[in-house]
Amino acid sequence: MVDDNLRQTVRNIPDFPKKGIVFRDITTLLKDKEAFRKSIDILFEKYKTVQIDKVVSVESRGFIFGSVLAYKLNAGFVPVRKPKKLPSATIREEYDLEYGKDILEIHTDAITKGERVLIVDDLLATGGTIDAACRLVERLGGEIIALAFLIELNFLNGRKKVERYPIHSLIQYDSE
Amino acid sequence: MVDDNLRQTVRNIPDFPKKGIVFRDITTLLKDKEAFRKSIDILFEKYKTVQIDKVVSVESRGFIFGSVLAYKLNAGFVPVRKPKKLPSATIREEYDLEYGKDILEIHTDAITKGERVLIVDDLLATGGTIDAACRLVERLGGEIIALAFLIELNFLNGRKKVERYPIHSLIQYDSE
Repeated sequence: MVDDNLRQTVRNIPDFPKKGIVFRDITTLLKDKEAFRKSIDILFEKYKTVQIDKVVSVESRGFIFGSVLAYKLNAGFVPVRKPKKLPSATIREEYDLEYGKDILEIHTDAITKGERVLIVDDLLATGGTIDAACRLVERLGGEIIALAFLIELNFLNGRKKVERYPIHSLIQYDSE
Repeated sequence: MVDDNLRQTVRNIPDFPKKGIVFRDITTLLKDKEAFRKSIDILFEKYKTVQIDKVVSVESRGFIFGSVLAYKLNAGFVPVRKPKKLPSATIREEYDLEYGKDILEIHTDAITKGERVLIVDDLLATGGTIDAACRLVERLGGEIIALAFLIELNFLNGRKKVERYPIHSLIQYDSE
């Protein structure tokens, strides 16, 4: 779904973090109480009749949307984090960056086998991060019900990487 | 307020991140849907009759509680972040770490003069982080109504550093 009112609250920052990239700055949406509320409410409407046991989000911006949805869906909230942030036993997955690799971790006791999981992030770009998060959840036996994003950058084809799941994004961009 | 049921959902990790420190791991509270809901509801009850324009939280764990409270209080949400994370114009404040210093930033347009602000974080320890966040908000002209925390480590006396504001914490520890 494309929502033009919501889209207008996202700030475009040309050449950030580097030349040729238009960064989609969601802080202007977040600070606008109506836009923030609307973005949550639209996502909630999509899943409110579905049983969700855990909402999983990737640090840090993903936490902002994931925690509110967990609360509203009456689910637990599970953070996926960069290495050395989670203090108990973890499993990890690597994913590719433009140059090099990065790693995400989840606590081994974060999800119980068979639990129904909604994965929430602010942005679907190349899909590397969210694919790693999905692999972590499935290694723990979680059943991924859907992936929800505030923003999707269609031209990066991240959807292709996680097309095995239902995907919902609120604001889509067809080009930089 | 000390809530023993909530406290029991926090996992204690001895000697993390180093010997002699007991890390209070809130991921076990977050994944427990009743405990997560209760922690939010108790904080919400405290402020629901107060006009709050913006909720400000420090990355990353602070986002988890701050965003839900912003939603429930019908306020905007403002992230305070480490350097180079916020893409538009920012101001910054330094704060002391055990060894060295760190920096926090806020977007200059995040808060309008006179707006009423609730600052939310997961943990009040030495108070350095939250004090820097308060200074950022006040430099933008925000009026800080209160500070809310999930956990307070009383023995580190962080409250002293921000005693100029009303402070509310849900779970308090008197020693490591």
